[in-house]
Amino acid sequence: MNVLNGHLGLFIDRYELTMAEGYFRDGRENVQANFDYFFRKNPFDSGFTVFSGLQDLLEMIQEFEFDASTIDHLHKEGFHAEFLEYLKKFHFKGIIEAPDEGEVIFPNEPILSVQGSLIETQLLETIVLNTLNFQSLIATKANRLRKAAGNRTIIDFGMRRAQGWAAIHGSRAAIAGGVDGTSNELASFLYGLKAVGTMAHSWVQSYEDELTAFRKYAEFHPVNCVLLVDTYNTLKIGIPNAIIVAKEMEQRGQRLFAIRLDSGDLAYLSKKTRKMLDDVDLTYIKIVASNQLDEYLINSLILQGAKIDSFGIGTSLITGQKDAALDGVYKLTDIDNRPVIKLSENVAKITLPGKKKIIRFFNDTGTFYADGIMLSDENENDIDVITHPQFSEKKSSVIGLKREQIGSMVMKSGEILLKKKSISEISEYRKFRVSQLSEEYKRFEFPHVYKVGLSKKLKKQRDLLINKEY
Amino acid sequence: MNVLNGHLGLFIDRYELTMAEGYFRDGRENVQANFDYFFRKNPFDSGFTVFSGLQDLLEMIQEFEFDASTIDHLHKEGFHAEFLEYLKKFHFKGIIEAPDEGEVIFPNEPILSVQGSLIETQLLETIVLNTLNFQSLIATKANRLRKAAGNRTIIDFGMRRAQGWAAIHGSRAAIAGGVDGTSNELASFLYGLKAVGTMAHSWVQSYEDELTAFRKYAEFHPVNCVLLVDTYNTLKIGIPNAIIVAKEMEQRGQRLFAIRLDSGDLAYLSKKTRKMLDDVDLTYIKIVASNQLDEYLINSLILQGAKIDSFGIGTSLITGQKDAALDGVYKLTDIDNRPVIKLSENVAKITLPGKKKIIRFFNDTGTFYADGIMLSDENENDIDVITHPQFSEKKSSVIGLKREQIGSMVMKSGEILLKKKSISEISEYRKFRVSQLSEEYKRFEFPHVYKVGLSKKLKKQRDLLINKEY
Repeated sequence: MNVLNGHLGLFIDRYELTMAEGYFRDGRENVQANFDYFFRKNPFDSGFTVFSGLQDLLEMIQEFEFDASTIDHLHKEGFHAEFLEYLKKFHFKGIIEAPDEGEVIFPNEPILSVQGSLIETQLLETIVLNTLNFQSLIATKANRLRKAAGNRTIIDFGMRRAQGWAAIHGSRAAIAGGVDGTSNELASFLYGLKAVGTMAHSWVQSYEDELTAFRKYAEFHPVNCVLLVDTYNTLKIGIPNAIIVAKEMEQRGQRLFAIRLDSGDLAYLSKKTRKMLDDVDLTYIKIVASNQLDEYLINSLILQGAKIDSFGIGTSLITGQKDAALDGVYKLTDIDNRPVIKLSENVAKITLPGKKKIIRFFNDTGTFYADGIMLSDENENDIDVITHPQFSEKKSSVIGLKREQIGSMVMKSGEILLKKKSISEISEYRKFRVSQLSEEYKRFEFPHVYKVGLSKKLKKQRDLLINKEY
Repeated sequence: MNVLNGHLGLFIDRYELTMAEGYFRDGRENVQANFDYFFRKNPFDSGFTVFSGLQDLLEMIQEFEFDASTIDHLHKEGFHAEFLEYLKKFHFKGIIEAPDEGEVIFPNEPILSVQGSLIETQLLETIVLNTLNFQSLIATKANRLRKAAGNRTIIDFGMRRAQGWAAIHGSRAAIAGGVDGTSNELASFLYGLKAVGTMAHSWVQSYEDELTAFRKYAEFHPVNCVLLVDTYNTLKIGIPNAIIVAKEMEQRGQRLFAIRLDSGDLAYLSKKTRKMLDDVDLTYIKIVASNQLDEYLINSLILQGAKIDSFGIGTSLITGQKDAALDGVYKLTDIDNRPVIKLSENVAKITLPGKKKIIRFFNDTGTFYADGIMLSDENENDIDVITHPQFSEKKSSVIGLKREQIGSMVMKSGEILLKKKSISEISEYRKFRVSQLSEEYKRFEFPHVYKVGLSKKLKKQRDLLINKEY
């Protein structure tokens, strides 16, 4: 997606550049490094997170370069000429390993790793974090909305409340996470998403009266026609007018697709509306509801027996309320084949040194049992037990369990190896993976905590470094 | 900012296009309309909102067009050929009125109005909402952080936690709202913002030991050198190593600018650090703190006597936590010179019909007293009283008060009239306007509610339409 025109290299925090310049001037540009991307807490108090944003990230990394105007800017900011010569020719040439988009992932797992020279791996930090943190946040939110809505349709109406250009990738991640369609025309264009939308209140207001407005809309848009019925008074005017137009459409061999409720008590109004429509044999007309919805309100509406076929969801989806961010970080784990650690007084923040991989263990029923993190050169079939990262006494036997590596090489020598999938394929994969997770991890209230443990070798390596550095 | 390359016209919700096509096919493309942008609630329970995003919005409107690939997309999506011919030539030719960026604004005021043909005004809805909602949210948050931090430095560290490309405009709005600098190099490049940043933990980890890492950094970056001291152990290792390097720098006639604390108890650590530095006569070294800060934590740190000179603020600033969105809407108020209304069972959601303006009344002390909304053709000097929008009994006399119109024409015939300001000029204007607001509106807890009332004529016009439509 070539929209940042040659200066995508500036999609970066200043300190990546000051560090890179330092590495360069210290003659360390070819020292090899490995960085891990991971997060510490699932968003929304979820039991898991949905991985999203990889394809966009890899495409942006391919276009991560510094054009003449960019170099000029950095020159004015005081960067050294030799370093700028290096940046002029910069292209990421390293290796990236990551799971497929739509994968179910958990805190503290080394989700994505970047291997290459110290400078090139450092320079990618901000764009990796920015892309994966946001899209995984939104895909996770979308999957929660999907769970709440069951088989009902859910549509992303969030573009107007999106955080500026976040709309572009946000709608993509929403569909990847389980939403059915979007109002966002740009995301539809860029990603082949299904775009939907019919009328605002302004359409109704712009005509002399609501009935005329409905008739005109049905005339110009008879297919998938949705009438917004709350401009003046939903039950007294809006629904009766919609019924008149629906009956007129029947005369022409057409069918009104739906009405939309955008205010008021949606449980009450949808039941009343359903009855009014059914009473005149318009049972086929669907009811769409919108207005500050989230997964909890959808749950509540369904519990109240609301007669809603489709939910339009704006702010809470596209901004990932209430969290608004996934706390992913990007940490150096290996330098010049030497494993390194970052300590912290908060033990949960001590990093896992060295190049690693994630192995997922399965129950006999085919559901996920636990994930193990081990060193890359360990044979996953040798792992019998995994240990809690902080509480060494807490161990889980994985003897005899079916196991599968999560993640594979998706970029090598700076070339994308990942087979490009459509967003609906990503969503299908998400659906499949989420189906392999037991229900207790998926509930909204106090979900069961999924086990993520360390192999003995990794634990030993980490403990040695802790003792050395403390 | 030409980065969406000819298809900025697709920065739009689908329904704007279906409506526009309907208007076009109904022969109404030259009917004149007025839309107002307004919001209903200040974000963060603030007493006011800081207006931001206008210059970006106007520039995007100038580039709001539909290139060949865009038209091709819409053709495939089923839009009619004649309408697409219209879109091919589309450029906004209307009028926009708005306040200067940095203005203090309040709920229910018609902040920005768009006048022109029904189609062109409709097509701008999404981009107006998206741009102003987000930037005003972030500028308001930034201003709260500024209030909390007083004269201490505050820096935007949010790029990695920003909602994808929201980072670009988010950092701009952060500076407009009162933040001093940003880590975001792209925003620095695009908007001339001050970019800052020094080192991550990876710099320290990448060397054999912390002292070497500090020495190397000071060698390559002696100016504004900031050492991150918490990679292994802040008080036992980090500060002592920083002191060694600071003393070595003194030998070379240099000065270590600051140390940065990024974890642990910032109140405790900053006090201990200050003492350790002062005890060896390094009183000039500043202390920078970061780690999940927001305005409440900054208040708390200052109350605890933390010795912090500069705050780095990430997630809460760049995502506008906890709200993550400003609830702005864009409503039709006038069609073909006929004022129109949108009703609601929630009286606060009933719109204000007709073309309007905002007049601000001043106390004798020069502070803001109240804002009045009136019809555009009213003479503001004739206004003696303003009435609460919902409670007719609540009136305020404004007789004899100094008054000033908020907002002016910033675009005409599609040309930008607004004089372009630097972001620091915008921030200066914000500072001036915020200084004209009394303290009781600025506190974080239960701020005083600022009076926004209607003129008699506007109220009468609204009440007539309510009675007509109900």
